[in-house]
Amino acid sequence: MNPSALPAPDYGKHLAFYFDFTSPYGYFAAQQIEALAARHGRSVRWHAFHMRAVMKDVLGVQQAMGDVPLKGDYVRTDVRRMARQLGVPYAPAPTAGFSSVCAGRMFHLLREHDAAVAARFAHAVFRSHHAQSASPNTWDQCAAIALEAGIDAGWLAAPQLEERGRTLYRDATDAAVAQGVWGTPTFIVDGEMFWGCDRMAQLNYWLQRGGW
Amino acid sequence: MNPSALPAPDYGKHLAFYFDFTSPYGYFAAQQIEALAARHGRSVRWHAFHMRAVMKDVLGVQQAMGDVPLKGDYVRTDVRRMARQLGVPYAPAPTAGFSSVCAGRMFHLLREHDAAVAARFAHAVFRSHHAQSASPNTWDQCAAIALEAGIDAGWLAAPQLEERGRTLYRDATDAAVAQGVWGTPTFIVDGEMFWGCDRMAQLNYWLQRGGW
Repeated sequence: MNPSALPAPDYGKHLAFYFDFTSPYGYFAAQQIEALAARHGRSVRWHAFHMRAVMKDVLGVQQAMGDVPLKGDYVRTDVRRMARQLGVPYAPAPTAGFSSVCAGRMFHLLREHDAAVAARFAHAVFRSHHAQSASPNTWDQCAAIALEAGIDAGWLAAPQLEERGRTLYRDATDAAVAQGVWGTPTFIVDGEMFWGCDRMAQLNYWLQRGGW
Repeated sequence: MNPSALPAPDYGKHLAFYFDFTSPYGYFAAQQIEALAARHGRSVRWHAFHMRAVMKDVLGVQQAMGDVPLKGDYVRTDVRRMARQLGVPYAPAPTAGFSSVCAGRMFHLLREHDAAVAARFAHAVFRSHHAQSASPNTWDQCAAIALEAGIDAGWLAAPQLEERGRTLYRDATDAAVAQGVWGTPTFIVDGEMFWGCDRMAQLNYWLQRGGW
């Protein structure tokens, strides 16, 4: 048999999910993305990236969205309305008081070892900031969240790991940008990009139809 | 009978639709908004406003969305994908070569006399720029579009009207901002604001449920 006549090997189709932990829309997307992907036989690859760095270095935006006149007020109303619609607990700590840097670094350290554990950690970080008004800003706070989520986080205390996490998170952010990612949440399936948790219905329809 | 016991007079519920003619998402929304409103027994009030002035004076944004790195590329892909999904003709002239000023002024002159005629004109302007690659930038081009749309536009030639249109369009933009409008398209029903044509499903659900 001619090997070129064989079907291409199926390595498993996935759905890439890019998010920053500070984003309420990323949090809302995180609640729904596994079910959406599973409906289409896809697994989710979770990609934490540093939105603030992308805003500054790529988009050239200095001002946080919440500080933009009118738009900031709208977004505050919108996220509460969306949380009610989705039935998702929503009691965020102030965005300005939360940096996703520590959580992002720890996420990538965990992901190097086990992607499913990293996704569990991501859920716990999202929940802490957006639903329990507690922003995990320090390494210890992030490790405590991991522990609460049933993740064996003892090995994360090794001092050299924070530097390794820094590299991983920075590289992951660069890789996201290289994929064309500029906002949170973003989804990529088969090279097709969708931005915003309000596009999940469209993303679902795309997968259902196989594009259009 | 005690007049205070009478039900409040019903002046007819409406749905306010704010848009700028340069916006492809405004164009897509315009194709769908009448049917959405009618489903809920609402009439649509069409409000053209000057997005570029709002960007500059309210949002403090100088850069056109299409010029933002990565985001501009995404939006160009997204609008074509959305046009295909909606089955809407989409062959736009370059955004940078289109100012909505003349069309906005003429729209408001027409609306002073007849809101339905103004809406018809709005459809014709959207179609011309976004589906027929012809940007109506001058008063004569706008008048020609009105005429083609079956609108008696002869009276618009009076020279004092452009100044009247200028005032109306500026006041309409100020009024939109006073309502909290900062983007295109925006919908307001019963004081509740929805931004983006990708929120029309949510708007529909809001009207169906009577809010949540």
